[in-house]
Amino acid sequence: MSCELYNTLGSQWIWYPGDFEIWLGNRFNNLRTERGALSPPFWKQDSHYPMVEFRKEVSLPSAEEIEVMVEGDYNIAIDGEKLFGMPQHITVPQGRHTISIKVVNQSLPPAIYIKGETICSDDSWRVTYEDKIWIDENGDAHGSGVYVPIGCWNFTDRNQPPSQFRLPTRPQDAVAHSATPNGVLYDFGCETFGYIVLHDITSTGKIDIFYGESAEEAQDEQRCETLDRLSVDGDTITDLGHNIKGNIEDGNYTLRFSKAFRYVMIKCQGGVAVGDVSMLYEYTTDGYRGTFHCNDEEVNRIWDVSAYTMQLTTREFFMDGIKRDRWVWSGDAVQSFLMNYYLSFDSDCVKRTLRLLRGKDPVTAHINTIMDYTFYWFKGVYDYYLFSGDVAFVREMYPKMQTLMKYCLQRTDSNGMAEGQPDDWIFVDWVDFPMHKRGVMCFEQILFCKALETMALCAEIVGDKENDYQRQAQQLRTMFEKTFWSDEHHAYLHNIEDRHLNTMVTKFPNMFALLYGYVDGERREEIMKHVMLNSNVEAITTPYMRFYELEALCMAGMQDEVLKEMKDYWGGMLGEGATSFWEKYVPHEHGTQHLAMYGRPYGKSLCHAWGASPIYLLGRYYLGIQPTSPGYEEYEICPHLGGLQWMEGTVPTPWGEIWIKVDIHHISVRSTGGTGTLKIGDRQIKININEEINIDY
Amino acid sequence: MSCELYNTLGSQWIWYPGDFEIWLGNRFNNLRTERGALSPPFWKQDSHYPMVEFRKEVSLPSAEEIEVMVEGDYNIAIDGEKLFGMPQHITVPQGRHTISIKVVNQSLPPAIYIKGETICSDDSWRVTYEDKIWIDENGDAHGSGVYVPIGCWNFTDRNQPPSQFRLPTRPQDAVAHSATPNGVLYDFGCETFGYIVLHDITSTGKIDIFYGESAEEAQDEQRCETLDRLSVDGDTITDLGHNIKGNIEDGNYTLRFSKAFRYVMIKCQGGVAVGDVSMLYEYTTDGYRGTFHCNDEEVNRIWDVSAYTMQLTTREFFMDGIKRDRWVWSGDAVQSFLMNYYLSFDSDCVKRTLRLLRGKDPVTAHINTIMDYTFYWFKGVYDYYLFSGDVAFVREMYPKMQTLMKYCLQRTDSNGMAEGQPDDWIFVDWVDFPMHKRGVMCFEQILFCKALETMALCAEIVGDKENDYQRQAQQLRTMFEKTFWSDEHHAYLHNIEDRHLNTMVTKFPNMFALLYGYVDGERREEIMKHVMLNSNVEAITTPYMRFYELEALCMAGMQDEVLKEMKDYWGGMLGEGATSFWEKYVPHEHGTQHLAMYGRPYGKSLCHAWGASPIYLLGRYYLGIQPTSPGYEEYEICPHLGGLQWMEGTVPTPWGEIWIKVDIHHISVRSTGGTGTLKIGDRQIKININEEINIDY
Repeated sequence: MSCELYNTLGSQWIWYPGDFEIWLGNRFNNLRTERGALSPPFWKQDSHYPMVEFRKEVSLPSAEEIEVMVEGDYNIAIDGEKLFGMPQHITVPQGRHTISIKVVNQSLPPAIYIKGETICSDDSWRVTYEDKIWIDENGDAHGSGVYVPIGCWNFTDRNQPPSQFRLPTRPQDAVAHSATPNGVLYDFGCETFGYIVLHDITSTGKIDIFYGESAEEAQDEQRCETLDRLSVDGDTITDLGHNIKGNIEDGNYTLRFSKAFRYVMIKCQGGVAVGDVSMLYEYTTDGYRGTFHCNDEEVNRIWDVSAYTMQLTTREFFMDGIKRDRWVWSGDAVQSFLMNYYLSFDSDCVKRTLRLLRGKDPVTAHINTIMDYTFYWFKGVYDYYLFSGDVAFVREMYPKMQTLMKYCLQRTDSNGMAEGQPDDWIFVDWVDFPMHKRGVMCFEQILFCKALETMALCAEIVGDKENDYQRQAQQLRTMFEKTFWSDEHHAYLHNIEDRHLNTMVTKFPNMFALLYGYVDGERREEIMKHVMLNSNVEAITTPYMRFYELEALCMAGMQDEVLKEMKDYWGGMLGEGATSFWEKYVPHEHGTQHLAMYGRPYGKSLCHAWGASPIYLLGRYYLGIQPTSPGYEEYEICPHLGGLQWMEGTVPTPWGEIWIKVDIHHISVRSTGGTGTLKIGDRQIKININEEINIDY
Repeated sequence: MSCELYNTLGSQWIWYPGDFEIWLGNRFNNLRTERGALSPPFWKQDSHYPMVEFRKEVSLPSAEEIEVMVEGDYNIAIDGEKLFGMPQHITVPQGRHTISIKVVNQSLPPAIYIKGETICSDDSWRVTYEDKIWIDENGDAHGSGVYVPIGCWNFTDRNQPPSQFRLPTRPQDAVAHSATPNGVLYDFGCETFGYIVLHDITSTGKIDIFYGESAEEAQDEQRCETLDRLSVDGDTITDLGHNIKGNIEDGNYTLRFSKAFRYVMIKCQGGVAVGDVSMLYEYTTDGYRGTFHCNDEEVNRIWDVSAYTMQLTTREFFMDGIKRDRWVWSGDAVQSFLMNYYLSFDSDCVKRTLRLLRGKDPVTAHINTIMDYTFYWFKGVYDYYLFSGDVAFVREMYPKMQTLMKYCLQRTDSNGMAEGQPDDWIFVDWVDFPMHKRGVMCFEQILFCKALETMALCAEIVGDKENDYQRQAQQLRTMFEKTFWSDEHHAYLHNIEDRHLNTMVTKFPNMFALLYGYVDGERREEIMKHVMLNSNVEAITTPYMRFYELEALCMAGMQDEVLKEMKDYWGGMLGEGATSFWEKYVPHEHGTQHLAMYGRPYGKSLCHAWGASPIYLLGRYYLGIQPTSPGYEEYEICPHLGGLQWMEGTVPTPWGEIWIKVDIHHISVRSTGGTGTLKIGDRQIKININEEINIDY
């Protein structure tokens, strides 16, 4: 197969699929600190394969010189004949030849960049980690039929190997500063993320930097969550927390590690002085493909702050919270994915997050050690497929979905239900009321059932006919219905532990039964009345579960009520001065109570991805746009003003944007692709590509 | 549990068990080169866990300062409270506390060294890679019962972290040199291994170094197997093969990478000159614990050259051949282990080789990709247990033995027999006659059966009662007996392929049936007569399989014949000038034919571990010493002169040496431990510790 046929990407750095995500993910997760102490995750970290071989067959009309850039030590062989040393330029003779490059790198993912007249490192290369499986030009793994595309992120600069990847930054100034008893407090105006820059450093001594999402935190030296301590000696600065040295250049020093903050307090001791403080703001992309405007300025502000919260938490990977947390969590990410589809449609970030979360075999624990987070991960893969239509990614993930599901199935009880084992964390949600999380929980079975159904869907996508997932899902569904549904309580009950049925009723299993379509008709009404809208059932206090709660209400057509909730809850945070949305919000709390969590005065994250769910709710249930077949090949629009006078917005898709404007009498829609259907009451109107539709209703 | 109870090792570097071996093994295997091209293995390389947590509970009568040395970035927590930064000195308060150190290192295995008055990094620490399994002070993994001791190699110098580990070297001079048309040829007198040192380098230009196990090879620039090319520019030398620069110091330069050779030819171009050439000989240990002398000087020389061959191939790991090969191979290693028990009894090298060969889960291919090599590996673990009595190691390996065996069992055919799949290499031996290696081979079933029996033995050692290995072994044995034994041929036949029984008779399955005790009485006699001593059956030409062939003859009491064979075969190599024993020896070949293999003029390894088997044969079947219970707690001595007039030797054991001297009338034995039995004909004489026995017979 000649190069030209496949050379659609041009030369770029390529590696073993998934390996760069694993490596970068370790670096990413290990950046968390707690008061100057490293704080890596408490789950297993994997590694890239330290030895990888790349191979390509070429057919050349004439000899061709190629340039070879490699991260690692390597050999090059033409038709199996190894060349001396590690040449950067070689000539491939005329005719049909096989080029193979074997790379060894224990520290960084082995990667290559090849540039010739026709020979380029692109997705036509084959790769193996010497598991005796060659992934060929068609992406098929020889001998197994498993599809794995080559790893690449469109790194096209030969002098910028993958390990040098960094997010872009831009300088940003503080908006105010003031003297405090112990130092100078700088305010950057809103929640932000990046690298502090110290200007005009003079003399010698110690500089402490205390970060705060609130002014209180930055001024609380003993209890703020993050800090840096520097020692200045002439032109040399030692970062005492990281044991690294750097130089002051033109009086300035940029911290080597990023932090989240709105405020920083700079405390100088021993004669050293700092003239000014600014920052390098670090980000993935500016601007959003999704938009939303309406007549209600508070709702607009909720959308804007949600979008900014997403911008701050969309990084190399989708992050949960940017200050203390800084790890990649599956339960959080699966929500970020959905919000992302209505904001930036950053498919790359979705894919790399899913790859990192899954890691490598063998599976030795649940994702993030949390059983529910494993189950959500499966849905994350299918959601991505539904929004993007990217079948290649499903084919890449499917073998890893299988081994993860095998792990889950091996840990079920004699009824086939998933019970948390001593080494599993059962999260569900942060709750302020007593809720036992051991035994067989109804909530977990519903998630597990959805995961099995997702496996069945993906098996069909990749053509795996020898699977039993649909039957296993059906069996589990029968079992949890029989075990947990109570006619008396009109609800799914909480759990079984030591053979005892706990009849506690919470919103968690019930709203997921609604969301996942496990109930309809009368039972749906019962759950709505006796659980979801029953004020005797404990309220949800995290935006995390409010996401699902409000989605369940929207699915029931309660957009008016949800809009009020949104204004109360997210509007409530805005009222408290939020510039990004929080990990948790309890309306009846006051002042610095809002900053505390986990028994720590500033333990709460004030910029938490799961706080941004209005992006998703407004896009999907008000603008009302969602794909009905993979990649928005087909989609529907069911707009719902929810009490607004008018709204206007765009929703990104793989092929462009869908624009819609709705007021109480008119609907206008414009779209650049797909087959869309506008649904108004019983009316169904087909949307033609690039043709604005204007409907009175 | 206080530190003192367990502090039997003193402070040393500790790491996650097996991780240093994996990492060092990659470095080791990746040092192979072919004519200046890197030549890493063609099997999967694993990595250490990049994040590991170490933990210990201490109970201190008073506060104690400890010193902390770490390979990697880390945090330290006392009772879960993290300390700022990465402190090298901390004070642990009086009382009961838990110290935990979490280390991140993508490039090197995370390792720590702790030194305090009572608190030391030793085998009392617990360790986890965050698989949610804690390995506790007793070596028990919390929650699984799997035993895993902490990783350590007795690195007690705080300033020498594990990654700096290097074998010792000593300077060695060439014994002769001579001018040749293209350069100067240096002769080091015998096969050797280490780093070439160039002396008195003057001017600028290029220096080529051609290595040879023979003078022919070193002078054959175009075809020698290994070489280095240097570029000299003032005081700077560039190693062109490795793309690294170094400095000439006092006119001298030591190569950074080791090579095997007896001869080197130094070729200078462009004005540069080299005054003299020496080397740094690299070795593990000098001297041997095992000895052998007898009246036959040729046999003594065979033993000496075998011992030297073992010294050269016993390195960080047991290596196959030191020139071209330089990888760690299971089939070769399992023989090295046995020789080693009669020479140096280097248990550490056995353990690290077994750990490296096994690697990490998941198993994606056979060890070294060779099915027979997987089967041998199991036996290697049990052999080590039998000779050393080290039950801890069996407990460490057992979970990995289980997963490897699971891999084997998943690949059997409907009869439960092991058939090579397309991605398996079926090695058996290098043979010069046509022998098909696909289908179901009798040889492989016999090895597989032994592996299953070994699993059953190890299951009993670790107390795993829920295994089926003995039944599976029995079933396989019944199956291969039924399938392959031929009364007509008085032999096990070769294989079944496409349902066709290939009636070819080779020594391979038959001698392993003898060795593994699968035949006795009449059938044993039949095999001896019709196969082993039948000159119509193809002869074995590698010392690799001669090891087993001669062992089978010795087991049949044919020491006289084996001694003659030994003198013919190994004596034959000595006659050809061997200073170490070869990968293969065909007596009727001549001159440079002896250097060729794999279609390459110098492809044969002239120093190959499997060439050293006389060490094992002479120790076990002439001195006649072997353990009969684990760790030589019980042993027997059945001396057999095999035609010699007298012999004298020592055999190392875990508790000391057993010395024996035998002539045709007298036997003297002295031992420092264990319960020994001297067997002479029907007589059984108990050997008392530290008491010399002198027997006339």
